[in-house]
This record gives sequence, C-alpha cells and structure tokens, in this order.
Amino acid sequence: MAKDVKEWMHTSISIPVGAKESADSILDKFSQGYLTLTMDDRRDLLISLAKDYDVNRARVRDLMEQYLNLEISHGDKFIGDEDGGASPSLYRRERSLRDALKPTYANFFERLNAQPGGLKLLAVLRADLLALLAIENVGSLRALDSYLKEKLITWLSPAALELHQITWDDSASLLEKIVEYEAVHPIRNLIDLKRRLGVGRRCFGYFHPAIPGEPLIFIEVALLKDIASSIQEVLWDDPPTAECKAHCALFYSISSTQPGLSGINLGKFLLKRVINMVKRDMPSVQKYATLSPIPGFMQWLNSKLASQLKLAESEAGSSDQLENRQSSTFRENILLSHEEKMIVDSIGENASRKSGIEVMHEMLQSKDWTKSEHFCTVLKSPLMRLCTRYLIKEKKRGKALDSVANFHLQNGAYIERINWMADQSEKGIKQSGGIMVNYVYRLENIEEYAQQYFNSGDIHASPRVVPIS
Amino acid sequence: MAKDVKEWMHTSISIPVGAKESADSILDKFSQGYLTLTMDDRRDLLISLAKDYDVNRARVRDLMEQYLNLEISHGDKFIGDEDGGASPSLYRRERSLRDALKPTYANFFERLNAQPGGLKLLAVLRADLLALLAIENVGSLRALDSYLKEKLITWLSPAALELHQITWDDSASLLEKIVEYEAVHPIRNLIDLKRRLGVGRRCFGYFHPAIPGEPLIFIEVALLKDIASSIQEVLWDDPPTAECKAHCALFYSISSTQPGLSGINLGKFLLKRVINMVKRDMPSVQKYATLSPIPGFMQWLNSKLASQLKLAESEAGSSDQLENRQSSTFRENILLSHEEKMIVDSIGENASRKSGIEVMHEMLQSKDWTKSEHFCTVLKSPLMRLCTRYLIKEKKRGKALDSVANFHLQNGAYIERINWMADQSEKGIKQSGGIMVNYVYRLENIEEYAQQYFNSGDIHASPRVVPIS
Repeated sequence: MAKDVKEWMHTSISIPVGAKESADSILDKFSQGYLTLTMDDRRDLLISLAKDYDVNRARVRDLMEQYLNLEISHGDKFIGDEDGGASPSLYRRERSLRDALKPTYANFFERLNAQPGGLKLLAVLRADLLALLAIENVGSLRALDSYLKEKLITWLSPAALELHQITWDDSASLLEKIVEYEAVHPIRNLIDLKRRLGVGRRCFGYFHPAIPGEPLIFIEVALLKDIASSIQEVLWDDPPTAECKAHCALFYSISSTQPGLSGINLGKFLLKRVINMVKRDMPSVQKYATLSPIPGFMQWLNSKLASQLKLAESEAGSSDQLENRQSSTFRENILLSHEEKMIVDSIGENASRKSGIEVMHEMLQSKDWTKSEHFCTVLKSPLMRLCTRYLIKEKKRGKALDSVANFHLQNGAYIERINWMADQSEKGIKQSGGIMVNYVYRLENIEEYAQQYFNSGDIHASPRVVPIS
Repeated sequence: MAKDVKEWMHTSISIPVGAKESADSILDKFSQGYLTLTMDDRRDLLISLAKDYDVNRARVRDLMEQYLNLEISHGDKFIGDEDGGASPSLYRRERSLRDALKPTYANFFERLNAQPGGLKLLAVLRADLLALLAIENVGSLRALDSYLKEKLITWLSPAALELHQITWDDSASLLEKIVEYEAVHPIRNLIDLKRRLGVGRRCFGYFHPAIPGEPLIFIEVALLKDIASSIQEVLWDDPPTAECKAHCALFYSISSTQPGLSGINLGKFLLKRVINMVKRDMPSVQKYATLSPIPGFMQWLNSKLASQLKLAESEAGSSDQLENRQSSTFRENILLSHEEKMIVDSIGENASRKSGIEVMHEMLQSKDWTKSEHFCTVLKSPLMRLCTRYLIKEKKRGKALDSVANFHLQNGAYIERINWMADQSEKGIKQSGGIMVNYVYRLENIEEYAQQYFNSGDIHASPRVVPIS
C-alpha cells in the first residue's frame, strides 16, 4: 500500500498543470490511501515529497543570473515603462522567479486543495508533519511545513469562513464532534451538552465550506450577571441567569479541532465576529470576558523550582568560591521571606532542615495539598503572586510565555483578574494549581491593545493584578 | 474624496503586518471610499498602487547576491542536510526571496480579502484594472493585474465555493440578481423567471461565503427528452417534458456575474458538480449537453470577408504583377463555387457584376436576410459550413478562437451538432447568424478530451460536423 500511495503522489505531481481531469482520480486514490498508512510510511512519503519535489535550484540560479544581468544592461534604475514603472521584461522575470522559487510540491497542494476532502487531508498531512518535526527537526521537512502552513493560511482566510451558532437543533453528527473536540472542559454526557447549548449559553463555530459538518474552531459562551471567578459557577449554573439580566458574555471554552492548523490564528476573527453578533442581539451585555486556563503555569513553576534546587545543591556540595559566585548569579528569591517562613513552618518540626523551595516543590508534586485547608492557605499567596508574574512578566520572543495568554493578548484583551481555586478538576490543579484568569475584551481598547502587544509585547492588566516580585 | 481614499490606501499599506485591528477601520473607509470614485480617480489610485508599492528591488538584489554567494561557498550541490536535503540556510533564503519578490501591495490585498466585503471589492478593483488595460497597456498595471488574478484564483479555490440549487423559494434579492446577471437569454419578467426555476428546469449557482447573496456564476438547465436544436424549444417549452421522461439535461445558459473574475475558470468545477448532482438525483438522464451561442462567429466572418474584398480591390486597381502574386497568397476561396453562384444569382441581374463575397458581405450587414426565405436558403449552406470551420479549425494560441467553444472544450466536451436558425433573437442573428451549437459532455470521455485539448488543442466533434473546407 505504501508503495502505491507514493506512486500516486509521484504521478499526481508529474501530470502537466491543467490536465486536471485524470489527475483527479489519482488524487482521490492518494487521499484515501494516505489515511491507511502507518506513521513510518507517512514519514517516508513526506520526506520524499520534501526532497524529491523541492525547489528547482538550477532554474532559480539561471533566472537570478538573467535578472541581475538585466540590471547591468538597464543601469541602476531598472526604469523602462513610459509611466515610470519598471520595464516589462523585469516584471516578467520577477514573475518567473516567483514561480521558480515555489517548491515543485506547490502544485500538488493546490490540486489537493481543489479536491473534495482535500483541505481536510492537507490538515492531516500537516498534523503528521508537526508530529515528525517534534522528533526529528529535518530542514527539508521544516521547509515543507512552513510552505504548507503559508498555503493553509491563505485558504483559510476569514473571508472563506462562516460563523454558525451551534444549537440543539443541529445534526447529531455535528454535536458529536463538539463533544469529541471540547478541549477545555470535557463534556460528560448528553445533559451536559444540552445545558451548554441551552438557555443562558451560546456556542459558535467557525466553518469552512470544504470541511462541512465540523467546525475548525468553536467557542462556548455563558451569559452571566458578572464575570465568573470559577468554572463551577459557569458549568453548574442551574438555573442560569435570566438572559435579559445578563451583563456579561463569558467565553469559557475555545477549542480548535484540527491539530494540523496549529499556529494559524482562527480564534482572532472568531472572537471579533462573536462579540459583534452578541452585541447586536443582546444590548444588555456590556462585558466580554473569558474564564481561561493557564496551561503552562505549573510546568514553568516546577522547572523554576527544580533548577533553583539544583543550583543550591551544587553550591552546598562545592567548596569553590568562584563557582559559587557564578551559580549565585542564576539564583533568585522565588519566595518572599514571609512566604518562605510560612511554608517551612507548615510542615512542622520534622523537616525543618528543608528550604521553602524544597518544601513547595515536594508539595506540588501531587494534588494532595489541595485537600488540606492548611496547605491551601499557606500556598495561596506565593502561587497567586508567582502566577501573576508568570502571566505578565514571563516572555518568549517578546510574547507571553503562556499560550492561552498569548492568544487573548494578541487579540486585544487585557488581564482583569486572577482567580484562586477556580478550576479544581484534576487537570486544573495539574496545569495551574487550580488558578484561572479572566481576560477582558473592552471594545474601545481592543485595537489599541492588540497593536501595542504586537509592536512591543506590552501586556495590559487591571491595577489589582500587578505582580509584587 | 479621491485624496482621502488614496491616503487610506497608503496608511493601510504602511501599517505593520499583524497590527490588524486599527488597520480594519481604515480599510473599511478605503473600501467605501473607492466605490464613490470616478474612473479617472480610480486610474490614478491604481497606478499609484502599482508603482509606489511595487517589488522592493534593492532588497531582491541583495538577497539574490547572498543566495548566489551561498552557492559558491557550498559548492555546486547545495547539500547540507543530514538527510540529503538542501542546507537550512538555503531554505531560509529561498523563503526570504519568495517574500521579497512579492510586491508591497500583496499585504494590502491579503488584508482587504480578510475584511467583510473585501473579496467583492477586490473583484471590482480588478474589473477596473481590466477596463484600464483595454485602453492603456501599462506594464506596471499589467503586473498588478496578473498578481491580483493569481491571488483571486487562490481565494476562489473550488474548495471554498458552494453549489446551491436556486429555486423560487430563494430570497427576492437573490432572484433579482439572477434576472440582472443572466447574460445569454435575458429574463423578461417574473413569469419567465418562475418558468426557469420551475418543473423541468434547474438553476444552480456557485457561491462564495465572502460574497453572500449572489452567485459568482450560475447555470440554467432544462430537462428534455433529447438534445434541443433551438432555443425556442427550451425557453417556450410549455408544458415541459415530464421530469421522469427526461433523458437529457440541457445546459442552456451559463452566466458569470463578476467581470473582475474574468479569466478565472469557475465554470469547470461548477459543470462537474452539476453533472454529478443531476446524475445522482435523476438516473433517467443519460445525456449532458449544451445549447450554446457562438459569440464570435459573425465578427470573424465579417472581418474575413472584408479583408478578402480589400485584397481583391487592391489587385483590381494594381497593374503590378508581383504585387498581385503576393496578395494572391493571402486570398482564399471562402465560398465554394456552387455557393458563389447561388449567392450571385440570388440578387438577380442588376448586381451581377459583384462577386459572391461582396454580395454576402452586404447581405450580412443587416438582419433583413433572415426575413426572406429565399436568402435564408441561399446562405444556409455556406454559413453552416463556415461556422463549422470557425468552431473546429480557427485557433488562437492553439485553442479554439471562440470563447464559448474554448470554455466547453477545455472542460472536456465535444461538438455534437450545429443548428441552423436556432436563435432568431436580434442578438443571436448578430452574433452568429442565428446558428447555435450543441456541446456534449459524455462522462466516460470528459477526462480524456479535456486532457487532449489541453495538451495539443485537439477538438473532438461528431462525424456529421466535420467541415468541408
């Protein structure tokens, strides 16, 4: 089978452009065949696609030399048009160069995209590519991924996407997909699903005509009196707020359904359109906020604690003063002195030789601490403080380190409030010690904030969440 | 106003990529403003777009030189990847070059396309460009058009288009558009429209989500016993064939609605999908045929006749034998001898000094000949023969000269029959002397014929339409 699928791929690519008709059936075979392949076979196939159908470099070099020669013969200005534009031959050559710099697999993607089911297959293909790249970061595969991503962004332009309110009247097959793809707060059963689509709630999906029957991304909204501070308020709000009394549209879950569209921001346009739609339908709603997870907080904190412990250990075991001085430049006071004291005291006499960081690190390894009111009281202040720091100060290439934070900040939200014990589910405790955050979209600031975040990574936050470092 | 619109365009283009939010309102203003401009102001604006936001050539040159240097330092093979692919820096530079070769206005188009109403505006913009290019063929405008066309093709990929059967239940605003855009056989009134959507008929439209409420192209189908040989049979078929007795789906009208999408073949995918839909719903239908106009026939014939007359005139007026020999190589026997005789005889004694070509040319200048049974009989044989020749033999760059013929042949149809006095409307007489043609789509040959036409311009025709030249 793997050999057949590869052969169909080769044939599809070698068929002359425009002779679409007979290419169609081969592409069909390829599409169906690809889905039956093992991951190893897919790897082989993708590597062959990336390398055997790469850019035609001999042609690129020829065209470049011709282009640069044209420059010499026309002088520095490249002027030739009666209207002051460049010369026609220059435009022609630039066009040829643009074409030549496209990898040979470009046409294969174009043709696949034109097939029924092709866009979905391309998303599968990219999901596989991303999985491969996580294991082996090969240059040719990276180039394939980057090209495919670029094309997907074009094909998934917001102009081609349709916003649809998902209700209990939708088909069972669509609703099944919602249950399957809900990534933030799993839907337990039919009653749970019905509640999420019922009174006081809204669910909106973004659909592409080429992938019918399932949204690419969907968002769940609760209509509430005010911004909720825990997910229990949202999920178990029964009876819900009367819709006419709702002043807040709370976005409590945003789920992407296609792993192959990772890195393509569909949520931005979805949010804007949802806000406009709710605004039009429900003039009483004044606030647009989220109740969002902080998926990277505990991972960041644990690795921070672990590295500090390691530095302390190596200092303790070494007599070399220079070495100690060097390592101390990497040490920092993660805990404030009163936090340190409370934490060390909390476990009593028998472990008093341990540092606060050590105790905290051990505590956070299991979720047992959440069951003890005592430990919760002790940890609340440092965890809330460190979470604020994580959200506002920790960056990667100038953008918020936390992926959900980055998502909302780039869309123009600001950080309104950080909520203790807002999600006590196992996942919530594991991800963020149960802490959740409200991002708020204030219509009059969305544009400004998004632009500032984009330009200089500025994060806006309500004064009460400013971190004490 | 023109100054404002230009200013909005400049601001939109100069705003950094990704700072989408505040660009949106400027783009909105631009979009609304553009539509209020006169054609002269649009021309100014488009020329400024084409020239002031062209390719950044200094950057292209820099990158090219770097790329070619990389070649020298890496040797001829450009190999650097552990898996035998090219080196990562080469991929990076190719990507940069691809980006640099995009004109600066590329991002403006991308952003416009992402706006509500943007795709439609881009189509208007291109329609204006095409109108300008018909008057002044400026290189920079041609490059702008070619780039915009390329982008439109990507955005209008068949994956993003939806097929919808248009019925009497559709909104009045949509049906109004159908009346307005019907390009082949104008719809006279409501009864006429209702008939075209009623029993024995189908109407299918191709819609894009970004241009809601109007199809980009639509096709009207009549369900008939057999392939119709005149448009009267189709338009006045009342009562129509019972649908269960229909063996032929006759495509009698295909209309594009957006002049700005000229040159982008949407009909190909529409036809394929319509055939598949009819096939599924109506197993009794065995034939898929068109009854098509021949829009270029009379124009071609008249210019042919005129040039022959001119050659004959110059020969008659010249005594230079060499000149006569030269011009005679351009002369051809447009009429067969018995046709020539019949035509000359038809107008009686008083004009017998005129040649057949001269008489024919004069006759065809008005539509009076169609009112005389005598003249119709005389002209039928030469016109049918020359029309066959026009459809099958006359080419432009290897493709059928007639635009409708080219459309169907590239989609895989063949020429089944040429029909005398099939469209006696004023337009029909003027375009093609009232002749119409049936193209047939035979499912088992569509792929093969389309490919042969694409590869070598081969035109398939039923044996009875082979031209006697």
